[in-house]
Amino acid sequence: MEKTIAEPTHDEDNRLNSDFVSAVVDAVADGDVEGARALVAPLHPADIADLFELAPGDRRKAIASALHGMIDGDVLAEMNDWVRDELMEALGPQEVADIATMLDTDDAVAIIEDMDAADQREVLRALAPDDRAAIEEALGYPEESAGRLMQRDLIAVPEHLSVGDVLDYLRRNEDLTTDFWEIYVVDPSHRPIGTCKLSWILRTPRSVAIADVMAREQTLIPVDMDQEEVALRFQKYALISAAVIDAAGRLVGMITVDDIVHIIQEEAGEDILRLSGAGEGDINEPIRYTVRTRLTWLLINLPTAMLAATVVGLFDERIAKYAVLAQLMGIVSGMGGNAGTQTLAVVVRALATNQLTSSNSVRMIMRELRIAAANGVALGLVVGAGCYLWSGVPGLAIVFALALFINNIVAGLAGVLVPITLDKMNVDPAVSSSVFVTTCTDSLGFLSFLGLAAMWGLGS
Amino acid sequence: MEKTIAEPTHDEDNRLNSDFVSAVVDAVADGDVEGARALVAPLHPADIADLFELAPGDRRKAIASALHGMIDGDVLAEMNDWVRDELMEALGPQEVADIATMLDTDDAVAIIEDMDAADQREVLRALAPDDRAAIEEALGYPEESAGRLMQRDLIAVPEHLSVGDVLDYLRRNEDLTTDFWEIYVVDPSHRPIGTCKLSWILRTPRSVAIADVMAREQTLIPVDMDQEEVALRFQKYALISAAVIDAAGRLVGMITVDDIVHIIQEEAGEDILRLSGAGEGDINEPIRYTVRTRLTWLLINLPTAMLAATVVGLFDERIAKYAVLAQLMGIVSGMGGNAGTQTLAVVVRALATNQLTSSNSVRMIMRELRIAAANGVALGLVVGAGCYLWSGVPGLAIVFALALFINNIVAGLAGVLVPITLDKMNVDPAVSSSVFVTTCTDSLGFLSFLGLAAMWGLGS
Repeated sequence: MEKTIAEPTHDEDNRLNSDFVSAVVDAVADGDVEGARALVAPLHPADIADLFELAPGDRRKAIASALHGMIDGDVLAEMNDWVRDELMEALGPQEVADIATMLDTDDAVAIIEDMDAADQREVLRALAPDDRAAIEEALGYPEESAGRLMQRDLIAVPEHLSVGDVLDYLRRNEDLTTDFWEIYVVDPSHRPIGTCKLSWILRTPRSVAIADVMAREQTLIPVDMDQEEVALRFQKYALISAAVIDAAGRLVGMITVDDIVHIIQEEAGEDILRLSGAGEGDINEPIRYTVRTRLTWLLINLPTAMLAATVVGLFDERIAKYAVLAQLMGIVSGMGGNAGTQTLAVVVRALATNQLTSSNSVRMIMRELRIAAANGVALGLVVGAGCYLWSGVPGLAIVFALALFINNIVAGLAGVLVPITLDKMNVDPAVSSSVFVTTCTDSLGFLSFLGLAAMWGLGS
Repeated sequence: MEKTIAEPTHDEDNRLNSDFVSAVVDAVADGDVEGARALVAPLHPADIADLFELAPGDRRKAIASALHGMIDGDVLAEMNDWVRDELMEALGPQEVADIATMLDTDDAVAIIEDMDAADQREVLRALAPDDRAAIEEALGYPEESAGRLMQRDLIAVPEHLSVGDVLDYLRRNEDLTTDFWEIYVVDPSHRPIGTCKLSWILRTPRSVAIADVMAREQTLIPVDMDQEEVALRFQKYALISAAVIDAAGRLVGMITVDDIVHIIQEEAGEDILRLSGAGEGDINEPIRYTVRTRLTWLLINLPTAMLAATVVGLFDERIAKYAVLAQLMGIVSGMGGNAGTQTLAVVVRALATNQLTSSNSVRMIMRELRIAAANGVALGLVVGAGCYLWSGVPGLAIVFALALFINNIVAGLAGVLVPITLDKMNVDPAVSSSVFVTTCTDSLGFLSFLGLAAMWGLGS
């Protein structure tokens, strides 16, 4: 039999396939612990993490017991937060502490920060004093700040060393970290004065001073900087790692790009979920939290819908006389809603990626206004002509076309002004913009269509 | 005078502030070329790129002429595609070719691939033969594939070398690349058999064989793999760089994480723009393209709106008798639309990040159904009670509450089934899902509310 190129355990998306997941779940259910362990043994830690996410929720604890000792820190660091929390309860504080000891500070913090206070205390108590001190210090920084992301194990050398001295230092000190991409050159007060890529060291003769190899231009990250801002710096300057400094400018840690990659992905994906009111949108979140988040959003949107209904109510006599208005009014509000969502999506992304700033916001508003006008004219003509052919009533067609045009302008203006204003007020535009924009497009859509119809005397 | 910590050129988002941008624009407009160059000289290439994006479109060519010689490959590589294309025309093929020569292949390809065919030929002709061959080979790979992303300059060594041999090789060969994070160990047919982080080499004595330092487990990227898939591998396995192989398994290039970071950001941000029909949503795109993209989407949504209007038309006699139905029907369709958008956002993100696979799709459908039922009951009770207090008509309140419940179920089911089905058919669910989901929530929302009202005999 020939081997196929695709691994038999993985599907075309490079995720464990459902046959493999079922095989492990079934082996555990049948009490075949050795069989389950044999299946899992060749997997990468990221795949073992996936296995737990893909297995049914009520089987995860049994799988964890069967795989005792195989779930190390790398597996937990890759695992979804909710799934991990569930497992931690199954493992108990001593085992969690053993795992945390083997990890970089940032990964240990990621695991411990989500636990409830009592469990956290128990795990911290089970840690060795120096690990405990490092993790407690990290937990002292604000959530989602550079201080939580950074690791403390890094290579820092004084500037008077030569390349040869650095090599000797790295080779002779057994307990230095083995995973690093750059080394930092510091002054006597431990303030970073330069950064040196390892490739530069490798390409340079031993006798050259490290100060002549390092780059003095470097991006320093303040320890209290928000992780989203950190991610944007990494992106803007194409960083692999960066030094983190305290308020006095002293080197306190290092952030590497592999931790940033997750943040960039999360932050970029968050916008779509926030705009739609889906909260974190984590598919492993317990269902009661999901219902609470989504229901809150739907209830917030209810007054918007009621306001629009009130606008319609102003014209109920006219609608009673001419029910075709009720038929068409939803097209006006709906098309306005679509146009508003388009503008909103573009503006929210541009704000999140720092592409839209005070230098170009006026230009952006004018741009959206021109787009809205062009779309409004085109849609108005298409829909107006269609309406005339369908109804044979020129007045209705004109009112319909005009209302569509007006609501496109409303949508364009609201879609750009609402998020820019919220951003200026330091409110996250992704969270709250769409309620305001929908309120505008629904209410003003109905008002312009039914109001123009009344002015034209349609249905009298 | 004391120095402030914030740079005077940057705002709180670490983008050039509008005063600085205006100062450069004004200096160029006043013919003060030296003044403009003095302002720009201290900037990082990423900031020079920003300067062009933030300056008004009609001033960019004049700024480019004033900054002649300061716009190097690093600046162009950081620049928005549309803004860059505009500049390239101002620069002319010889200058573009000079810039491309100084770049890594992947960055040169990124600049050249978007040019139109005639300009591309001219630039290629102006290149040195070996640069030209490398770039033409890269352009031969599909767009957005690993072959376009990879650079050809990398360090590959045979496995019989010692660490000392590797150090000597790196120090003695002047023309090797200076920027790399890992070296690849290859067999005699140039197939990668292991990867070695530079930090491991630095921590190991000269006499140790490189084969004893390298990791044999490595993630190899096929040259034709789609960039989104490449990005997911980098994320899943926390890679800094990865070897790219051809169909015969030979090492042909290397991809580094700094290029992947941009892709992750783009791909994650794309979903929000596609779901809303905003195309690429690039704020620097010429306005005629933007209008075309957005208008197409609005026209695609028109039949959906018309179908919903047709459903309303079925009940126009009843609406004429009881216009309050017209008032409330928009609440049913609107709340259904909101709930559908929530589910859609979650499912689209879960599909894009490979969190939702065939192993857990049934579970996901059941999950969304339970959420929809819970939200439907809660919303139905709130809105039904409110309607009874407002109208005093129990039948209307019951019909309204029931219709809201039904439409929540419709929204939940459509929101999860539509994207999963499209994904199975290899259609991007972010692009086309929302039309289908809106069609369901609008039409079935009206149908359930007006249909139940007719069955109950409201308005007769």
